[in-house]
Amino acid sequence: MPAPTGHEVLAAVLQIRAGTLQVLLWQRGREPDRGRWALPGGRLGDTEDVEESVRRQLAEKVDVREVAHVEQLGVFSAPDRVPGARLVATSFLGLVPSDADPEIPEDTAWYPVDDLPATAFDHAEIVRDARDRLRAKLSYTNLGFALAPREFTISALRELYAAALGHPVSATNLQRVLTRRGVLAATGETAAPGPAGGRPAAVFRFTERALRVTDASAVLRPPGVREGERAEPAVGG
Amino acid sequence: MPAPTGHEVLAAVLQIRAGTLQVLLWQRGREPDRGRWALPGGRLGDTEDVEESVRRQLAEKVDVREVAHVEQLGVFSAPDRVPGARLVATSFLGLVPSDADPEIPEDTAWYPVDDLPATAFDHAEIVRDARDRLRAKLSYTNLGFALAPREFTISALRELYAAALGHPVSATNLQRVLTRRGVLAATGETAAPGPAGGRPAAVFRFTERALRVTDASAVLRPPGVREGERAEPAVGG
Repeated sequence: MPAPTGHEVLAAVLQIRAGTLQVLLWQRGREPDRGRWALPGGRLGDTEDVEESVRRQLAEKVDVREVAHVEQLGVFSAPDRVPGARLVATSFLGLVPSDADPEIPEDTAWYPVDDLPATAFDHAEIVRDARDRLRAKLSYTNLGFALAPREFTISALRELYAAALGHPVSATNLQRVLTRRGVLAATGETAAPGPAGGRPAAVFRFTERALRVTDASAVLRPPGVREGERAEPAVGG
Repeated sequence: MPAPTGHEVLAAVLQIRAGTLQVLLWQRGREPDRGRWALPGGRLGDTEDVEESVRRQLAEKVDVREVAHVEQLGVFSAPDRVPGARLVATSFLGLVPSDADPEIPEDTAWYPVDDLPATAFDHAEIVRDARDRLRAKLSYTNLGFALAPREFTISALRELYAAALGHPVSATNLQRVLTRRGVLAATGETAAPGPAGGRPAAVFRFTERALRVTDASAVLRPPGVREGERAEPAVGG
C-alpha cells in the first residue's frame, strides 16, 4: 500500500494588465521556498471536491466574482515536487476580464507570465501550461469572453488577443473570423474616437459568456446542430 | 490539517469495435462493488507520477503498445466517491486503433460506451467524459489517427468517425475537410473493391501520429506558422 498522499489545488489566474498577460502570485512567508512567489491555493478540505476547493481558496486572494472562467488544467504529481510528505496538485486556469481590478492582499502581486520572479516548487511550469492552454483555446473556442470587458471596440479586442497570444493580430481578420463563427455581435452603439481622432468605432460584445468550441467543422457536427452550438466538455478541456 | 488522501489513476480506454465505440472494463472480484464493472487503474505508487502510473497499470490489462494516445481527462474528487478512506482519482482517456485486437485478461471485456453494464463507483461518469472529450477533439484536432489503422479508405474512415461521433458522417465532406486541414495524405495505393464491387478505392494515412489542433484560424496563429502546425498542450486539454 502506498504512503498516504496530501492533495492540494493551485490556480493560475491570468489577466491582461497594461497590455501584458499577467498571473496572480503571492510571496511565501515561510519555508520551504520562503520569499519565492507561489500560485494561490492550498490543501483539499475533507468535505469539498477540487472545484469547490479552488474557489474557496481563490476567495482568500481575490474577489472570485471577478473570475469569468475556471477550468482544470491538469495534475502535477512528480514524487519530489515539494519537499517532505508527498503532495499531489490539481491545477486550474482562471481568467479575469481586463477591465476588472480586483483588490488583492499585501503579499500578492501580478507578474507578466513571460517575466516571472523566482517561483516556488513547480509553479512556473503550471503558469506555462496555463498560458499555453489559453493560447490554444483562443484559436478554437470563444474563450476571449473571459479576457474582454462586456463591451469593446475591435481595436481594443485586437490588443487583448495580441497580448494573450504573444504576437500581432490583424483587427480586420479578427473581426471577420469571430463574426463568421457567431462569437461577436454588434451592440449598435459606437465609442467616441480616441485622442488620435478618426471616426467613432462600433462597439461589440461576445454573444455568450460560457465556453464552447467555435471552430468545429460542419461535417463533424450532428445533423441539425448549427455552427458553434456544440458544447465543450465541462472538465479539463 | 485535512485527513490524508489516497490517490488512484483510472483509464477509459476506447476502441471502435464492430462499428461501435467501446470501453475496456474489468469485473470487480471483491467488495466494495463486487461484481460491478470498473475502469483499469489503481493506487498511485510512491515513486511514480500519474502518467507513469496509468501506463504501468494499463499494462496489467492490455498490451499498452496498442494504445495510440493517452491524455489526462480530469480529477474526480467528490469526498464520498468511494466507500471508506478518501480516494482522489486522476482519470485518463486512452485510444486504441480499430485494427488492433489486444489480448485481455479473463476478468476483462469491452462494452459499448452507450450501453454499459452495472459500473462501479463513479466510473460511468468517467466513461461519459472520455466519450465527450473524444467527440470534441475529433472536431478540431487530428485525433482520428488514434482510432484508425495506419492505412484506410475514406469509406472505412467514415465508418470510424460515425461510430465515434454517434451520428452519420458524409465520406465526401470528411475527405474534403481532413485534406484541407492537412491531416490526410494519399498513399498512392488502392484497395481492392469490396464484395459489392465498384472501383478500387484510394488508400490514405494520417500525416502525423501526435495530437495537434488542426482547425485554428490563420488570424490567431503566429506569423510564419502554417495551418495545423500549432501544437496542442501536452497535459489535459
